[in-house]
Amino acid sequence: MEATYAALCKHGYASLRMQDIADESSKSKATLHYHYESKQALLYALLDYLTDSFAERIETLEGETPADQLLSLVEHYLSPGEDDAREEFRTALLEIKAQGPYDDRFRAELTEFDRLLHGRIRSLLEAGQADGIVRRDIDPDETAEFITTVLNGAQTRHVAVDHPTDQTYAMLETYVTRELLAEDATPTEVGLE
Amino acid sequence: MEATYAALCKHGYASLRMQDIADESSKSKATLHYHYESKQALLYALLDYLTDSFAERIETLEGETPADQLLSLVEHYLSPGEDDAREEFRTALLEIKAQGPYDDRFRAELTEFDRLLHGRIRSLLEAGQADGIVRRDIDPDETAEFITTVLNGAQTRHVAVDHPTDQTYAMLETYVTRELLAEDATPTEVGLE
Repeated sequence: MEATYAALCKHGYASLRMQDIADESSKSKATLHYHYESKQALLYALLDYLTDSFAERIETLEGETPADQLLSLVEHYLSPGEDDAREEFRTALLEIKAQGPYDDRFRAELTEFDRLLHGRIRSLLEAGQADGIVRRDIDPDETAEFITTVLNGAQTRHVAVDHPTDQTYAMLETYVTRELLAEDATPTEVGLE
Repeated sequence: MEATYAALCKHGYASLRMQDIADESSKSKATLHYHYESKQALLYALLDYLTDSFAERIETLEGETPADQLLSLVEHYLSPGEDDAREEFRTALLEIKAQGPYDDRFRAELTEFDRLLHGRIRSLLEAGQADGIVRRDIDPDETAEFITTVLNGAQTRHVAVDHPTDQTYAMLETYVTRELLAEDATPTEVGLE
Protein backbone atom coordinates (compact mmCIF):
# COMPACT_ATOMS: atom_id res chain seq x y z
CA MET A 1 0.00 0.00 0.00
CA GLU A 2 2.86 2.38 0.84
CA ALA A 3 4.56 1.65 -2.47
CA THR A 4 1.30 2.11 -4.39
CA TYR A 5 0.67 5.40 -2.59
CA ALA A 6 4.21 6.64 -3.31
CA ALA A 7 4.07 5.63 -6.97
CA LEU A 8 0.64 7.20 -7.44
CA CYS A 9 1.85 10.46 -5.94
CA LYS A 10 4.98 10.46 -8.11
CA HIS A 11 3.41 9.50 -11.45
CA GLY A 12 -0.26 10.46 -11.16
CA TYR A 13 -3.08 8.12 -12.08
CA ALA A 14 -3.07 8.31 -15.89
CA SER A 15 0.56 7.33 -16.45
CA LEU A 16 1.00 4.93 -13.50
CA ARG A 17 2.39 1.49 -14.43
CA MET A 18 2.82 -1.67 -12.37
CA GLN A 19 6.59 -1.22 -12.76
CA ASP A 20 6.39 2.19 -11.03
CA ILE A 21 4.79 0.52 -8.02
CA ALA A 22 7.40 -2.26 -8.01
CA ASP A 23 10.13 0.41 -8.12
CA GLU A 24 8.81 1.88 -4.85
CA SER A 25 8.65 -1.50 -3.09
CA SER A 26 10.98 -4.33 -2.17
CA LYS A 27 8.91 -6.67 -4.36
CA SER A 28 9.39 -7.46 -8.04
CA LYS A 29 6.76 -6.66 -10.63
CA ALA A 30 6.17 -10.42 -10.99
CA THR A 31 5.48 -10.80 -7.27
CA LEU A 32 3.05 -7.88 -7.36
CA HIS A 33 1.26 -9.47 -10.32
CA TYR A 34 1.01 -12.72 -8.36
CA HIS A 35 -1.03 -10.95 -5.68
CA TYR A 36 -2.78 -8.25 -7.73
CA GLU A 37 -4.06 -8.75 -11.23
CA SER A 38 -3.37 -5.19 -12.39
CA LYS A 39 -2.44 -1.70 -11.28
CA GLN A 40 -6.22 -1.09 -11.03
CA ALA A 41 -6.52 -3.88 -8.46
CA LEU A 42 -3.73 -2.29 -6.42
CA LEU A 43 -5.42 1.09 -6.62
CA TYR A 44 -8.77 -0.37 -5.47
CA ALA A 45 -6.96 -1.92 -2.51
CA LEU A 46 -5.25 1.40 -1.78
CA LEU A 47 -8.53 3.35 -1.76
CA ASP A 48 -10.05 0.70 0.48
CA TYR A 49 -7.09 0.93 2.84
CA LEU A 50 -7.21 4.75 2.91
CA THR A 51 -10.94 4.75 3.62
CA ASP A 52 -10.42 2.35 6.53
CA SER A 53 -7.59 4.51 7.91
CA PHE A 54 -9.74 7.62 7.59
CA ALA A 55 -12.63 5.88 9.36
CA GLU A 56 -10.34 4.94 12.23
CA ARG A 57 -8.76 8.38 12.36
CA ILE A 58 -12.09 10.23 12.64
CA GLU A 59 -13.58 7.89 15.22
CA THR A 60 -12.10 10.03 17.96
CA LEU A 61 -11.83 13.73 17.19
CA GLU A 62 -10.28 16.52 19.23
CA GLY A 63 -12.66 18.95 20.88
CA GLU A 64 -14.89 19.28 23.91
CA THR A 65 -18.18 19.47 22.04
CA PRO A 66 -19.64 18.03 18.82
CA ALA A 67 -19.24 21.50 17.21
CA ASP A 68 -15.52 21.50 18.01
CA GLN A 69 -15.19 17.94 16.83
CA LEU A 70 -16.87 18.87 13.54
CA LEU A 71 -14.29 21.59 12.99
CA SER A 72 -11.49 19.13 13.85
CA LEU A 73 -12.86 16.79 11.20
CA VAL A 74 -13.02 19.62 8.65
CA GLU A 75 -9.48 20.66 9.51
CA HIS A 76 -8.20 17.10 9.23
CA TYR A 77 -9.88 16.65 5.86
CA LEU A 78 -8.64 19.95 4.46
CA SER A 79 -5.06 19.84 5.71
CA PRO A 80 -4.11 16.25 6.45
CA GLY A 81 -0.41 17.13 6.27
CA GLU A 82 1.95 19.65 4.82
CA ASP A 83 4.30 17.43 2.85
CA ASP A 84 4.49 17.40 -0.94
CA ALA A 85 3.20 13.83 -1.22
CA ARG A 86 -0.15 14.93 0.23
CA GLU A 87 -0.44 17.63 -2.45
CA GLU A 88 0.31 15.11 -5.15
CA PHE A 89 -2.12 12.63 -3.64
CA ARG A 90 -4.96 15.18 -3.79
CA THR A 91 -4.25 15.66 -7.47
CA ALA A 92 -4.14 11.91 -8.19
CA LEU A 93 -7.37 11.50 -6.22
CA LEU A 94 -9.08 14.08 -8.42
CA GLU A 95 -7.97 12.08 -11.48
CA ILE A 96 -9.47 8.99 -9.88
CA LYS A 97 -12.73 10.85 -9.11
CA ALA A 98 -12.94 11.68 -12.82
CA GLN A 99 -12.90 7.89 -13.45
CA GLY A 100 -16.07 7.48 -11.37
CA PRO A 101 -18.44 7.25 -14.35
CA TYR A 102 -16.22 4.71 -16.17
CA ASP A 103 -15.03 2.42 -13.39
CA ASP A 104 -17.53 0.76 -11.06
CA ARG A 105 -14.95 -0.30 -8.49
CA PHE A 106 -13.55 3.23 -8.22
CA ARG A 107 -17.09 4.54 -7.90
CA ALA A 108 -17.85 2.00 -5.16
CA GLU A 109 -14.72 2.95 -3.19
CA LEU A 110 -15.33 6.68 -3.65
CA THR A 111 -18.97 6.24 -2.61
CA GLU A 112 -17.93 4.43 0.55
CA PHE A 113 -15.58 7.27 1.47
CA ASP A 114 -18.25 9.87 0.67
CA ARG A 115 -20.81 8.08 2.86
CA LEU A 116 -18.33 7.73 5.70
CA LEU A 117 -17.57 11.46 5.66
CA HIS A 118 -21.22 12.44 5.32
CA GLY A 119 -22.31 10.00 8.04
CA ARG A 120 -19.72 11.22 10.53
CA ILE A 121 -20.70 14.86 9.97
CA ARG A 122 -24.39 13.99 10.34
CA SER A 123 -23.80 12.11 13.59
CA LEU A 124 -21.83 15.08 15.00
CA LEU A 125 -24.68 17.44 14.09
CA GLU A 126 -27.20 15.07 15.69
CA ALA A 127 -25.08 14.85 18.83
CA GLY A 128 -24.89 18.66 18.86
CA GLN A 129 -28.66 18.90 18.64
CA ALA A 130 -29.06 16.41 21.49
CA ASP A 131 -26.68 18.55 23.59
CA GLY A 132 -28.60 21.74 22.71
CA ILE A 133 -25.55 23.26 21.01
CA VAL A 134 -26.75 22.91 17.41
CA ARG A 135 -29.99 24.50 16.20
CA ARG A 136 -32.88 22.08 16.19
CA ASP A 137 -34.41 23.55 13.06
CA ILE A 138 -31.58 22.42 10.77
CA ASP A 139 -31.77 19.06 9.03
CA PRO A 140 -28.64 17.11 10.08
CA ASP A 141 -28.69 14.96 6.94
CA GLU A 142 -29.03 17.83 4.45
CA THR A 143 -26.56 20.00 6.34
CA ALA A 144 -24.04 17.14 6.35
CA GLU A 145 -24.54 16.82 2.57
CA PHE A 146 -23.87 20.52 2.22
CA ILE A 147 -20.66 20.39 4.26
CA THR A 148 -19.50 17.27 2.37
CA THR A 149 -20.06 19.16 -0.89
CA VAL A 150 -18.08 22.14 0.42
CA LEU A 151 -15.19 19.83 1.38
CA ASN A 152 -15.15 18.27 -2.09
CA GLY A 153 -15.19 21.72 -3.65
CA ALA A 154 -12.28 22.87 -1.50
CA GLN A 155 -10.13 19.97 -2.70
CA THR A 156 -11.11 20.51 -6.33
CA ARG A 157 -10.46 24.25 -6.30
CA HIS A 158 -7.19 23.70 -4.50
CA VAL A 159 -5.96 21.31 -7.19
CA ALA A 160 -7.46 23.16 -10.15
CA VAL A 161 -6.73 26.81 -9.33
CA ASP A 162 -4.60 26.65 -6.16
CA HIS A 163 -7.39 28.07 -3.98
CA PRO A 164 -6.13 27.99 -0.36
CA THR A 165 -7.87 25.31 1.72
CA ASP A 166 -7.42 27.37 4.90
CA GLN A 167 -9.79 29.93 3.38
CA THR A 168 -12.44 27.22 3.08
CA TYR A 169 -11.74 26.21 6.68
CA ALA A 170 -12.34 29.81 7.81
CA MET A 171 -15.56 29.99 5.77
CA LEU A 172 -16.83 26.74 7.27
CA GLU A 173 -15.95 27.93 10.77
CA THR A 174 -18.05 31.05 10.14
CA TYR A 175 -20.85 28.92 8.71
CA VAL A 176 -20.88 26.57 11.69
CA THR A 177 -20.64 29.37 14.25
CA ARG A 178 -23.20 31.69 12.69
CA GLU A 179 -25.67 29.38 11.03
CA LEU A 180 -25.60 26.07 12.88
CA LEU A 181 -25.07 26.88 16.53
CA ALA A 182 -28.14 27.33 18.70
CA GLU A 183 -28.73 31.00 19.51
CA ASP A 184 -28.38 30.49 23.23
CA ALA A 185 -25.08 28.65 22.88
CA THR A 186 -22.29 31.15 23.53
CA PRO A 187 -18.94 30.70 21.79
CA THR A 188 -17.30 29.89 25.13
CA GLU A 189 -19.88 27.26 25.98
CA VAL A 190 -19.29 25.36 22.75
CA GLY A 191 -15.53 25.66 23.16
CA LEU A 192 -14.94 27.63 19.96
CA GLU A 193 -13.12 30.47 21.67
CA MET B 1 -14.39 24.23 -31.18
CA GLU B 2 -17.49 22.10 -31.71
CA ALA B 3 -15.41 19.20 -32.98
CA THR B 4 -12.96 19.53 -30.05
CA TYR B 5 -15.87 19.61 -27.59
CA ALA B 6 -17.50 16.55 -29.18
CA ALA B 7 -14.23 14.58 -29.28
CA LEU B 8 -13.40 15.51 -25.67
CA CYS B 9 -16.84 14.33 -24.52
CA LYS B 10 -16.54 11.09 -26.47
CA HIS B 11 -12.97 10.13 -25.55
CA GLY B 12 -12.23 11.97 -22.31
CA TYR B 13 -9.10 14.01 -21.74
CA ALA B 14 -6.48 11.32 -21.10
CA SER B 15 -6.97 9.32 -24.29
CA LEU B 16 -7.92 12.18 -26.65
CA ARG B 17 -5.87 12.33 -29.86
CA MET B 18 -5.71 14.95 -32.62
CA GLN B 19 -7.22 12.32 -34.96
CA ASP B 20 -10.31 12.06 -32.72
CA ILE B 21 -10.88 15.79 -33.13
CA ALA B 22 -10.35 15.59 -36.91
CA ASP B 23 -12.89 12.73 -37.02
CA GLU B 24 -15.53 15.05 -35.52
CA SER B 25 -14.82 17.89 -37.95
CA SER B 26 -14.81 18.51 -41.70
CA LYS B 27 -11.06 19.26 -41.50
CA SER B 28 -8.17 16.84 -41.90
CA LYS B 29 -5.71 16.19 -39.10
CA ALA B 30 -3.07 18.00 -41.20
CA THR B 31 -5.26 21.11 -41.48
CA LEU B 32 -5.87 21.10 -37.72
CA HIS B 33 -2.13 20.82 -37.12
CA TYR B 34 -1.57 23.78 -39.44
CA HIS B 35 -3.68 25.97 -37.12
CA TYR B 36 -3.04 24.32 -33.76
CA GLU B 37 0.27 22.86 -32.69
CA SER B 38 -1.20 20.06 -30.60
CA LYS B 39 -4.35 18.71 -29.01
CA GLN B 40 -3.34 20.71 -25.93
CA ALA B 41 -3.48 23.94 -27.99
CA LEU B 42 -6.97 23.01 -29.17
CA LEU B 43 -8.07 22.29 -25.61
CA TYR B 44 -6.71 25.64 -24.39
CA ALA B 45 -8.67 27.35 -27.14
CA LEU B 46 -11.78 25.35 -26.20
CA LEU B 47 -11.58 26.34 -22.52
CA ASP B 48 -11.05 29.96 -23.55
CA TYR B 49 -14.08 29.79 -25.83
CA LEU B 50 -16.25 28.15 -23.16
CA THR B 51 -15.24 30.75 -20.57
CA ASP B 52 -16.17 33.54 -23.00
CA SER B 53 -19.53 31.90 -23.74
CA PHE B 54 -20.21 31.46 -20.03
CA ALA B 55 -19.32 35.13 -19.39
CA GLU B 56 -21.77 36.22 -22.07
CA ARG B 57 -24.45 33.84 -20.85
CA ILE B 58 -24.35 35.06 -17.26
CA GLU B 59 -24.27 38.75 -18.13
CA THR B 60 -28.06 38.81 -18.15
CA LEU B 61 -29.72 36.43 -15.70
CA GLU B 62 -33.39 35.67 -15.20
CA GLY B 63 -34.97 37.02 -12.04
CA GLU B 64 -36.45 40.21 -10.66
CA THR B 65 -33.90 40.71 -7.91
CA PRO B 66 -30.17 40.01 -7.39
CA ALA B 67 -31.15 37.09 -5.09
CA ASP B 68 -33.24 35.52 -7.86
CA GLN B 69 -30.49 36.15 -10.36
CA LEU B 70 -27.99 34.45 -8.07
CA LEU B 71 -30.19 31.34 -7.97
CA SER B 72 -30.53 31.48 -11.78
CA LEU B 73 -26.75 31.52 -12.03
CA VAL B 74 -26.46 28.57 -9.64
CA GLU B 75 -29.10 26.67 -11.59
CA HIS B 76 -27.40 27.37 -14.89
CA TYR B 77 -24.03 26.23 -13.53
CA LEU B 78 -25.41 23.05 -11.97
CA SER B 79 -27.71 21.92 -14.77
CA PRO B 80 -26.58 23.52 -18.03
CA GLY B 81 -28.44 20.90 -20.03
CA GLU B 82 -29.79 17.42 -19.81
CA ASP B 83 -28.07 15.74 -22.74
CA ASP B 84 -25.41 13.07 -22.37
CA ALA B 85 -22.66 15.25 -23.84
CA ARG B 86 -22.98 17.63 -20.87
CA GLU B 87 -22.47 14.73 -18.46
CA GLU B 88 -19.40 13.62 -20.34
CA PHE B 89 -18.10 17.17 -20.52
CA ARG B 90 -18.29 17.50 -16.71
CA THR B 91 -16.21 14.36 -16.39
CA ALA B 92 -13.62 15.55 -18.92
CA LEU B 93 -13.49 18.91 -17.16
CA LEU B 94 -12.69 17.18 -13.87
CA GLU B 95 -9.81 15.38 -15.61
CA ILE B 96 -8.60 18.76 -16.87
CA LYS B 97 -8.89 20.27 -13.38
CA ALA B 98 -6.61 17.48 -12.15
CA GLN B 99 -4.02 18.76 -14.68
CA GLY B 100 -3.99 22.18 -12.96
CA PRO B 101 -0.77 21.57 -11.02
CA TYR B 102 1.07 20.24 -14.08
CA ASP B 103 -0.09 22.50 -16.89
CA ASP B 104 0.19 26.28 -16.55
CA ARG B 105 -2.09 27.07 -19.49
CA PHE B 106 -4.85 24.85 -18.11
CA ARG B 107 -4.42 26.46 -14.72
CA ALA B 108 -4.61 29.93 -16.29
CA GLU B 109 -7.83 29.07 -18.15
CA LEU B 110 -9.37 27.39 -15.10
CA THR B 111 -8.40 30.36 -12.94
CA GLU B 112 -10.04 32.78 -15.37
CA PHE B 113 -13.26 30.77 -15.24
CA ASP B 114 -13.10 30.54 -11.43
CA ARG B 115 -12.60 34.32 -11.12
CA LEU B 116 -15.43 35.01 -13.52
CA LEU B 117 -17.84 32.84 -11.52
CA HIS B 118 -16.69 34.23 -8.18
CA GLY B 119 -16.81 37.83 -9.45
CA ARG B 120 -20.33 37.50 -10.82
CA ILE B 121 -21.62 36.02 -7.56
CA ARG B 122 -19.90 38.76 -5.56
CA SER B 123 -21.40 41.51 -7.71
CA LEU B 124 -24.89 40.00 -7.29
CA LEU B 125 -24.43 39.90 -3.51
CA GLU B 126 -23.22 43.52 -3.54
CA ALA B 127 -26.20 44.57 -5.66
CA GLY B 128 -28.47 42.72 -3.21
CA GLN B 129 -26.93 44.61 -0.29
CA ALA B 130 -27.39 47.92 -2.10
CA ASP B 131 -31.07 47.03 -2.64
CA GLY B 132 -31.48 46.05 1.02
CA ILE B 133 -32.35 42.46 0.10
CA VAL B 134 -29.09 40.85 1.24
CA ARG B 135 -27.84 41.12 4.82
CA ARG B 136 -25.28 43.88 5.23
CA ASP B 137 -23.27 41.92 7.78
CA ILE B 138 -22.11 39.28 5.31
CA ASP B 139 -18.88 39.73 3.38
CA PRO B 140 -19.78 39.55 -0.34
CA ASP B 141 -16.29 38.44 -1.34
CA GLU B 142 -15.99 35.61 1.22
CA THR B 143 -19.57 34.51 0.66
CA ALA B 144 -18.96 34.39 -3.10
CA GLU B 145 -15.89 32.24 -2.44
CA PHE B 146 -18.01 29.91 -0.34
CA ILE B 147 -20.68 29.55 -3.02
CA THR B 148 -18.02 29.04 -5.72
CA THR B 149 -16.53 26.26 -3.58
CA VAL B 150 -19.97 24.65 -3.14
CA LEU B 151 -20.51 24.72 -6.92
CA ASN B 152 -17.14 23.06 -7.54
CA GLY B 153 -17.97 20.43 -4.94
CA ALA B 154 -21.33 19.71 -6.53
CA GLN B 155 -19.69 19.00 -9.89
CA THR B 156 -16.99 16.83 -8.32
CA ARG B 157 -19.41 14.76 -6.23
CA HIS B 158 -21.71 14.38 -9.20
CA VAL B 159 -18.93 12.94 -11.34
CA ALA B 160 -17.25 10.92 -8.59
CA VAL B 161 -20.20 9.40 -6.73
CA ASP B 162 -23.25 10.42 -8.80
CA HIS B 163 -24.48 12.85 -6.15
CA PRO B 164 -27.54 14.65 -7.61
CA THR B 165 -26.81 18.29 -8.47
CA ASP B 166 -30.44 19.27 -7.84
CA GLN B 167 -29.86 18.39 -4.18
CA THR B 168 -27.03 20.94 -4.08
CA TYR B 169 -29.33 23.46 -5.78
CA ALA B 170 -31.94 22.91 -3.05
CA MET B 171 -29.29 23.28 -0.33
CA LEU B 172 -27.99 26.51 -1.86
CA GLU B 173 -31.54 27.85 -2.16
CA THR B 174 -32.02 27.19 1.56
CA TYR B 175 -28.65 28.78 2.32
CA VAL B 176 -29.45 31.92 0.31
CA THR B 177 -32.98 32.24 1.69
CA ARG B 178 -32.16 31.57 5.33
CA GLU B 179 -28.65 32.88 5.75
CA LEU B 180 -28.12 35.62 3.19
CA LEU B 181 -31.41 37.46 2.86
CA ALA B 182 -32.00 40.47 5.06
CA GLU B 183 -34.43 39.69 7.88
CA ASP B 184 -36.93 42.29 6.77
CA ALA B 185 -36.96 41.03 3.17
CA THR B 186 -39.96 38.75 2.78
CA PRO B 187 -39.78 35.85 0.30
CA THR B 188 -42.38 37.58 -1.89
CA GLU B 189 -40.45 40.81 -1.95
CA VAL B 190 -37.31 39.14 -3.25
CA GLY B 191 -39.29 37.14 -5.77
CA LEU B 192 -38.37 33.72 -4.39
CA GLU B 193 -41.95 32.60 -3.95
